[in-house]
Amino acid sequence: MPYIDTDTESLITKEGVFDDQLFRQSAEIVVSKLEKYLADSSIRGLALSNPYDLSQTAKEIMNQGQKDRALCNQEKLEAIIDLYIKTGIQVYSPGYMGRQFSGVIPLAGLIDLISSIVSQPSSFYEAGQLPNVVERIMADEFNQFIGWSPDSFAMVTTSGGTLGNLTALLAARNEKFPQIWSEGISALGDQYRPAIAVSEDAHYGVCRAAGIMGIGENQIVRLPINQKKQICIDQVGPTLEAAEKRGLKIFCLVASAGTTSVGAFDSIDQLAQITKEKNIWLHIDGAHGASLLVSDQLRHKLKGIEKADSFVLDAHKMMFLPGVCTLLFYKNKEKSYGAFRQNASYVFEKVPDIYTQFDSAEQNFECTKRPLIMNLWVLWALYGKEIFADKIEYLCQLTQEAYQILKHEPDFQTIHQPEVNILCFRYVPSNVSDNLLSDFQLAIRNRIREGGKFFISKVEIDGINSLRVVFMNHRINTHHFHELLDEIRKIGLELISGT
Amino acid sequence: MPYIDTDTESLITKEGVFDDQLFRQSAEIVVSKLEKYLADSSIRGLALSNPYDLSQTAKEIMNQGQKDRALCNQEKLEAIIDLYIKTGIQVYSPGYMGRQFSGVIPLAGLIDLISSIVSQPSSFYEAGQLPNVVERIMADEFNQFIGWSPDSFAMVTTSGGTLGNLTALLAARNEKFPQIWSEGISALGDQYRPAIAVSEDAHYGVCRAAGIMGIGENQIVRLPINQKKQICIDQVGPTLEAAEKRGLKIFCLVASAGTTSVGAFDSIDQLAQITKEKNIWLHIDGAHGASLLVSDQLRHKLKGIEKADSFVLDAHKMMFLPGVCTLLFYKNKEKSYGAFRQNASYVFEKVPDIYTQFDSAEQNFECTKRPLIMNLWVLWALYGKEIFADKIEYLCQLTQEAYQILKHEPDFQTIHQPEVNILCFRYVPSNVSDNLLSDFQLAIRNRIREGGKFFISKVEIDGINSLRVVFMNHRINTHHFHELLDEIRKIGLELISGT
Repeated sequence: MPYIDTDTESLITKEGVFDDQLFRQSAEIVVSKLEKYLADSSIRGLALSNPYDLSQTAKEIMNQGQKDRALCNQEKLEAIIDLYIKTGIQVYSPGYMGRQFSGVIPLAGLIDLISSIVSQPSSFYEAGQLPNVVERIMADEFNQFIGWSPDSFAMVTTSGGTLGNLTALLAARNEKFPQIWSEGISALGDQYRPAIAVSEDAHYGVCRAAGIMGIGENQIVRLPINQKKQICIDQVGPTLEAAEKRGLKIFCLVASAGTTSVGAFDSIDQLAQITKEKNIWLHIDGAHGASLLVSDQLRHKLKGIEKADSFVLDAHKMMFLPGVCTLLFYKNKEKSYGAFRQNASYVFEKVPDIYTQFDSAEQNFECTKRPLIMNLWVLWALYGKEIFADKIEYLCQLTQEAYQILKHEPDFQTIHQPEVNILCFRYVPSNVSDNLLSDFQLAIRNRIREGGKFFISKVEIDGINSLRVVFMNHRINTHHFHELLDEIRKIGLELISGT
Repeated sequence: MPYIDTDTESLITKEGVFDDQLFRQSAEIVVSKLEKYLADSSIRGLALSNPYDLSQTAKEIMNQGQKDRALCNQEKLEAIIDLYIKTGIQVYSPGYMGRQFSGVIPLAGLIDLISSIVSQPSSFYEAGQLPNVVERIMADEFNQFIGWSPDSFAMVTTSGGTLGNLTALLAARNEKFPQIWSEGISALGDQYRPAIAVSEDAHYGVCRAAGIMGIGENQIVRLPINQKKQICIDQVGPTLEAAEKRGLKIFCLVASAGTTSVGAFDSIDQLAQITKEKNIWLHIDGAHGASLLVSDQLRHKLKGIEKADSFVLDAHKMMFLPGVCTLLFYKNKEKSYGAFRQNASYVFEKVPDIYTQFDSAEQNFECTKRPLIMNLWVLWALYGKEIFADKIEYLCQLTQEAYQILKHEPDFQTIHQPEVNILCFRYVPSNVSDNLLSDFQLAIRNRIREGGKFFISKVEIDGINSLRVVFMNHRINTHHFHELLDEIRKIGLELISGT
């Protein structure tokens, strides 16, 4: 009888790496470190390290005490955690105003810990009973704000917005060209090419999808955008028609509910009218902004979402959950089964039963899918939508106030009126010439990052770099924004004077 | 000045949902529950519930105490955790012998908790400095067992084996047909169709990739397999040539290092000879078995892996980490940049600097990528490869012993000599006729699952269902396997007698 205890002097048993005691000890270390981290309210951004130096540090920790392992493992673990925390963007600090991820709701992290340990890959009901059931509960909860008929729609969780968008695009492609799945795009011949219409300002993931799907990035039809960076409704019809004349067959129009660059919301309601007439699938990339559904105050920005064929929502963005948790909604449940088709006896039951009806493997890309929905549901069960709505509303309000502040500062240039929690602007002191303006913003951004106090991002708008702030932390107030502007001025002047 | 404290009676501040104190309190609840769960060594499989009943239970918990939220939230949280744990497959129990996921190394779960909280999406060095550096360290660690020249190869983490396989297939497709990314498959015209050669026993995810990529599942060329379920080397050449004659242009051959059904290892060394001659990309789906690289005793099963153009390894399978953590290796570093191509000013820096050199966003599908590598690296830093090798070796040895046991039991039929920790067999008492054998295995499997003591899976082999055991727990010994056989006999007899 083989038994690892008796056969070998294995580390597994000798050090008890699977045991509850070591788990408790390590948990104490981890929780204490995180507790301290969460309590630190100092203003800080990012301590950027030279990657080669950091690599050296990591290797040194790794190679410590190779001879007396157990003795030094607690020390090593502590050193690693300290280094991991220290080298990250300080997302819970008011100094972090940079990107679309955030300091998460800590309880969600703890639920994620449970998911890590209990191992319930949730593409199959059998392996993740509660996550699969909860996915339907959350679908119904969200549908309160959408308004589809019960049981007529579907919601599937998947691993990230890019994968969510790809999945929806596949469902759209396969509906319009059912032969592609089996026969390939070659089977369509040379008559026309399948194509996708997207905003000029669409996320790179959407264009990537065209490359991945074999459609080709050249078959991306760019819809012109207006001053507010929304798709120009007037130009959609003519652009689509011109594309059709070039031999393109557009099967999907992708609009945005919160563009990545400036947070613009396309007019879903008006686009839906056009796509309906033209019999084109309307998909909304709501990775950033579809979470506004939970806010009574802000939901109107998504007007018409119930007319979209599909949309994605990244709960790891504006619902403040650990990455990743993407919700993909379909107006028509049947169509959610059209994204993939396959056969595999060891996973798919030939005769659906009461259990396999709840499987999601035929609808989502993943075979092993983390039970992503649990983090969201537990918070929802404990706090309802308010916890999300309150924070989203605060962040959007703060962004409006920051915009007002900028408008009163003559050395700053606003670029757009913010619609959500993303605000782009430029620092334009009078002594910087126009042709240097773009490089100047980039230099400011990088030096702010180096300074380590604030962290902001940058984005190219109309060919010129601009500074970009994303408010993801409710502990930020307008005082902090004023401090940021002071920092920008200070750095700007240093750059101008060459110091 | 807007400030969430003063403006609203928000739950966020009232209940302190982002605060360190509530984190500590919730952590205590979560850690205690998990500690108890890890300490439970009873033999149990899965308590399968009716999904509608479970949904009802979940809703009841959710709707408790809507009026006095704070008071009841601790109670609710406890009820949810209990339900989540109870309804899962009991992966740490010796009764679980069912699938390729496992009770993870608990410390990995705790590192995952840190990753959840510190929010370091690791497609970009800036946002996840340590994960990006560590990815290269782990690449070098693995390369000790592969043997490529330093700096000539690449390793990228991605979210799951299916995504890893798709990424490699895209790199292969784009290398052979560089025009597809921009122009689409239509641009190739009707001369030939891009095609992929795979084992008859390949994972469904590989075939799905053909559908996704626009190549079409019909352009999957099935390579015949032998008795051991390996690709028949003799038949590869003729099969490829026949396919070329039908107008297919095979750009990639996908072999398996550990098939999902029985754990068969294809002869990589011999396949590499063929693909080299034919100038075809060789990709190895080593989701299950490539982890054997870390074992001096078992590495030989991967002989020739250094000749493959790419391979994937799921560390959430045989390295016992939380799902998901997939490592995708490329022999040629340059080619890892060929899977995707795009342009997005807000993420990709136009001029690479010392930091952006460490970005992985151009090589991996994800924009927001969880720092998957950290769970693996921390364990590696603390325990080295031994912790993984010891367990893998034990599990493979146990599987051999279980196979020997079966060979001595006349009422059981073995189907293959196991190569790894997967063992398929059938219960064949003399009074079950051949035409009922397949349904009989399925019925046994389902009734075992219902019994709740053991959890095993099933797989169709040569058109007939068989029972499938995957040993993922080192606490299982041959006594437990004997107990399983007794259970199978008992249930088999019940089924025969119609009780």
